[in-house]
Amino acid sequence: MGKVKVAAFSLSLDGYGAGPDQSQTHPLGVGADGLHKWILGTRTFQAMTGGEGGSTGVDDAFTRRSFKNVGAWIMGRNMFGPVRGPWPDASWRGWWGEEPPYHVPVFVLTHHPRTPLEMEGGTTFHFVTGGPDEAMQRAREAAGERDVRIGGGVQTVRAYLQRGMIDEMHLVTSPVVLGQGEALFAGIDLVAAGFRCVEHVASPEALHSVLVRTGTD
Amino acid sequence: MGKVKVAAFSLSLDGYGAGPDQSQTHPLGVGADGLHKWILGTRTFQAMTGGEGGSTGVDDAFTRRSFKNVGAWIMGRNMFGPVRGPWPDASWRGWWGEEPPYHVPVFVLTHHPRTPLEMEGGTTFHFVTGGPDEAMQRAREAAGERDVRIGGGVQTVRAYLQRGMIDEMHLVTSPVVLGQGEALFAGIDLVAAGFRCVEHVASPEALHSVLVRTGTD
Repeated sequence: MGKVKVAAFSLSLDGYGAGPDQSQTHPLGVGADGLHKWILGTRTFQAMTGGEGGSTGVDDAFTRRSFKNVGAWIMGRNMFGPVRGPWPDASWRGWWGEEPPYHVPVFVLTHHPRTPLEMEGGTTFHFVTGGPDEAMQRAREAAGERDVRIGGGVQTVRAYLQRGMIDEMHLVTSPVVLGQGEALFAGIDLVAAGFRCVEHVASPEALHSVLVRTGTD
Repeated sequence: MGKVKVAAFSLSLDGYGAGPDQSQTHPLGVGADGLHKWILGTRTFQAMTGGEGGSTGVDDAFTRRSFKNVGAWIMGRNMFGPVRGPWPDASWRGWWGEEPPYHVPVFVLTHHPRTPLEMEGGTTFHFVTGGPDEAMQRAREAAGERDVRIGGGVQTVRAYLQRGMIDEMHLVTSPVVLGQGEALFAGIDLVAAGFRCVEHVASPEALHSVLVRTGTD
C-alpha cells in the first residue's frame, strides 16, 4: 500500500496555509500570492500551466517530486472551486482547464452530490459526500500501490491529521505574514502524532521541510 | 530614539518559540535544542560562550547583527533563570556566568522585587515589578538613541506585540516541530499590526525573515 502524503504545501511565517476572504478573484485568500511565490517560477509549474522555461533548482525539484508516484488525490471543495452550496449546474469544471495536472482520480469532499466529471488526460473528479473517511477509502482503492496525495486546503489537511492518516508532509515555509486565515496546525500536536523533520533544504525563496510520521516511541 | 526590536528569535515549523516543560535542565523546553541549532555553530555564539572557531556565513552575520546598536534589553524572568516565585536568595545570577553577553542594562520582568545585580562587562540586571510598560520606559531611557532589544521569551514578546511597541522582528524558522509549547503569534494579526517581511535569506539550517512595522495603510 502506498503512503498518504501532503506535498508542496505552503505555510506563512505566522502559520497560515491560506489567507482570509477566499473568493474567485483570490482563490488562496487575500495576500496569499507571496505564499506560493516559490512554486510559481519553477519549470514544472510553468509546464503544467502552459508556460515555458522556469527555474530548475531546489524549488523545482520539490515540485516535481510532489507529483511522483501519486495514484489518487483528495481535495476539499474550496480547492476545487469557488462555488458554494448545492451545485447550480455542471458548468464549473475546476480551476485548471480541460486537462488538469492530476492525471489520476481526484476525490473532492463536498456536502452536495454531483456526477463524476471526466476531464482530459486521465483526471476524473469524483464528488464524495460521505466525508473524509469515505474519500480516503475510495482514494486508497484507486491508488493501489501508489500514494494518496492530500491536496488541501487547510481544513482538509487538518481533517486527515486529526484522524492520524497522514504519513508524510512536505511543508514549504514562505517569508510572508498573512495575519489571519486558516492556521494549519492550531491545536494539533505534531510530536505527539509521531512526526519528525527528516529532511530540510532552503532555497532562496523558502524553507522546504519533510516531516515523516515515525511513531511516538 | 532607537527602535524596539526582536532579533534572532527562533520559531519552529508549528509556530512555537519554546518547547513544553521548561526547567533548569531544559531551559528552552523539551525538544527545543534543534530550534536553536542555527545559532549554536556560529562564530559569534562560540565567541560569546568562550568557544573558538564557528561558522561565518548567513547565520553568523545575523547573529552579529542582532547585537548591533542595542542600548538595553528586556527579558522575561524565565529567560533570566529557572527560579520561580519570590527570590529565595541572590545566588541565581543568570545562565551566562559572571560576564553575560549583554554589556548594557537588562530589564527583567518579575513579580518579585530584587536588588539590581551588577555583573562584569557592563551588564546590570534590573528587576522590574511594574510590568511591561514600566520596563519599556526604563529600557528606552537607558538605551537613549540606541535600540531596545526584547530578548524573550514568548510571553514577553507577545506582551509587547499586543501593545504595538515592536518595530522590527528578525525571526528564524527552524526545520523542527515541537508539538506543543508557547505559540508566538496565536491570536495576533501581524498584518493588521502593520508588519511586512522586508528581507529574507535562507541558510542551510534555517530561514531568516526580517519583519518591519510599516503601518497599516
